[in-house]
Amino acid sequence: MQAVGIIVEYNPFHNGHHYHLQSAKEETNADCVIAVMSGHFLQRGEPAVVSKWARTKMALKAGADLVIELPYAFSTQQADTFANGAVAILEHLKASYVCFGSEHGNTQSFLKFSRLLKEHEHAIDEHVQSYLKVGNSYPKALSLAMKNITNEQIGLNMEQPNNILGVSYVKAIEKQHASIKPHTITRIQSHYHDKMLSETEITSATSIRHALFQDIIDVKDLSRYMPNPVIQGLKDYQTQIGFLHNWELYFPFLKYQLMTHSPESLQAIYEIEEGIEYRLLNAIKEALSFEDFLSKVKTKRYTRTRLQRMCVHILTNTKKNELSKSPSTAYIRLLGISQIGRLYMKQIKKDVSVPIVSTVSQCKHVDLSLDIKATNIYSSPLQEPIRSQFLKQEYTQPPIMI
Amino acid sequence: MQAVGIIVEYNPFHNGHHYHLQSAKEETNADCVIAVMSGHFLQRGEPAVVSKWARTKMALKAGADLVIELPYAFSTQQADTFANGAVAILEHLKASYVCFGSEHGNTQSFLKFSRLLKEHEHAIDEHVQSYLKVGNSYPKALSLAMKNITNEQIGLNMEQPNNILGVSYVKAIEKQHASIKPHTITRIQSHYHDKMLSETEITSATSIRHALFQDIIDVKDLSRYMPNPVIQGLKDYQTQIGFLHNWELYFPFLKYQLMTHSPESLQAIYEIEEGIEYRLLNAIKEALSFEDFLSKVKTKRYTRTRLQRMCVHILTNTKKNELSKSPSTAYIRLLGISQIGRLYMKQIKKDVSVPIVSTVSQCKHVDLSLDIKATNIYSSPLQEPIRSQFLKQEYTQPPIMI
Repeated sequence: MQAVGIIVEYNPFHNGHHYHLQSAKEETNADCVIAVMSGHFLQRGEPAVVSKWARTKMALKAGADLVIELPYAFSTQQADTFANGAVAILEHLKASYVCFGSEHGNTQSFLKFSRLLKEHEHAIDEHVQSYLKVGNSYPKALSLAMKNITNEQIGLNMEQPNNILGVSYVKAIEKQHASIKPHTITRIQSHYHDKMLSETEITSATSIRHALFQDIIDVKDLSRYMPNPVIQGLKDYQTQIGFLHNWELYFPFLKYQLMTHSPESLQAIYEIEEGIEYRLLNAIKEALSFEDFLSKVKTKRYTRTRLQRMCVHILTNTKKNELSKSPSTAYIRLLGISQIGRLYMKQIKKDVSVPIVSTVSQCKHVDLSLDIKATNIYSSPLQEPIRSQFLKQEYTQPPIMI
Repeated sequence: MQAVGIIVEYNPFHNGHHYHLQSAKEETNADCVIAVMSGHFLQRGEPAVVSKWARTKMALKAGADLVIELPYAFSTQQADTFANGAVAILEHLKASYVCFGSEHGNTQSFLKFSRLLKEHEHAIDEHVQSYLKVGNSYPKALSLAMKNITNEQIGLNMEQPNNILGVSYVKAIEKQHASIKPHTITRIQSHYHDKMLSETEITSATSIRHALFQDIIDVKDLSRYMPNPVIQGLKDYQTQIGFLHNWELYFPFLKYQLMTHSPESLQAIYEIEEGIEYRLLNAIKEALSFEDFLSKVKTKRYTRTRLQRMCVHILTNTKKNELSKSPSTAYIRLLGISQIGRLYMKQIKKDVSVPIVSTVSQCKHVDLSLDIKATNIYSSPLQEPIRSQFLKQEYTQPPIMI
């Protein structure tokens, strides 16, 4: 049996994700699809709209055979660290391919870009720093530096977010001397602005979240953009938990947490540096909402994503001594598994060199503290007794099977 | 002009407090009443039912001439530390007397008790430890030790909470070699259990809070037990803020805060010792309310008050390096002042050796960080934009005058 790996957030799952999952399986001729999926906090520094268990069900229903949790230590980090974690997990699980969507769509370009990056590492780094200093974004600076140094036109636009991630995946494979191979699929995109729902069946997860949280659309009316079981999953979640998660629900807790800090104690939080702690503590006093807070803190230097990631680490009170840019993949946490997934695991299990966590309560020797904490914090806006039940699930939930 | 000092919480203000305030003034023949009043968190380890500003207005309307904030560093501590702070403030302000209500009612007994305590300090301490070990409460152990060592019957029952505080006031005066004199007034008590509203005009603050939070009585029906302006003050507070404060409102934040901690980091919190951190972290997971949490954690060793004080320090994230059993009174924070109070301050101002804080925003050189933090945390259950306005008040509110 051969497996293809995909790296996902499903926030929430939509038709574009379905296309990606099916294409990945077909194009690599795989028997088994392994989805490495972020836990409760995501790469843009946001809480997931529904729990990892609800998203696992969606992934399984859409055809994933194994759903593995991308730990907090990777899921809330910038592209290179995020990619390193996900690729390492897929390598541990002997996937033949990692298959990622990209705006560009040509795997060779990613390989070439990555090779040039490595060959000219020092010179490119220097140029990137200069371009950053005159006010360019990091992706723009990287594109300019690459062009200047290599004088090659690869046509890989680094200002497109999935191209950035693609390069990170290829870099991770090379860095880890992994045997997994990269393969990219062109993303089907809407021609509209990311935040606007498209007129086709494919729209971005961003546009879906925007429409839901601005009360532009109701879950039940999303059938154009997502499979029916996903809509049912979202509706069930709303009924059971009471809401879909967004940053505003966590704002009272973020404000409370910041209020307990001095600038000195805030400096101990991961990613808090360069004096941003003073800016944060000053802005929070009068901030009326999370959006209001971000708008008060944001500058050219601090992008929204970077600030949101800081806010996630503040919310979870994650310290510099708890997290780094190079965490290790110390375990494989199985969130969901299909019949095919079970056959595949049976085949590879003996060759997996890290512990496989099925149920947390049975794995006392594995350090899952950051992921457990993330779930605890993610549950903060829930009412009792639902909150306590939710927390219990973190310890007692075995891999979901459908 | 002569001043009498009283040490109060007014949680909430009732007829018994009114009697105490007036008697203190009459019995000591004072021109000016100085009320040292706890800020937002109180000695039993509870949030105050209404803000310090609302309680300041009640105190002024009832006849207090100066309302001084007892800082967080003292207001949330056990009797001796609490008393040391309050007495030091009154001594700074040149009060002639500190006048406290007690069950016993005879000042001489307090002086005698305190003298004997000092004379036999070492022996009594040893006996207290033995009595504690066999399961006695601290007040009971102290009573037994005193009787055993001195063989004297002072008749001061240390199991009555205001007698305990009275002894602490007298000890504080002696320890500080203060010139202020103690004077006690017999408390008028209801003959009913503390939690039951009495049938006379005097009932305990505990019974009022209990009746309010168990929905046994509405604020408007409390006119038997408190002056009308106080009832109006409570009603206004409910209208403006949306509720009266109790621990349950802070429970989601306490649970959230505990969830961000490991046993090791929890040990850094003030008063967390002897392994209680494991008990707390274990109980919080399934606790559905603050009451439920306390019932899960409580043992003979840890009284409710002791646990509640711990919870206050966890809620405010107050570390061992921020607080001790012997903090210093570094400032006098003026919450309210009457015409007479102004005359009195004019008379003594030049002889006050610590800074007098009228408006926080104008006192950047004074370290008020614990009190500011307490107000920030106290505001956590408030909705925006009321919460932000509440926080602003901490910095901009000048002393209240009526």
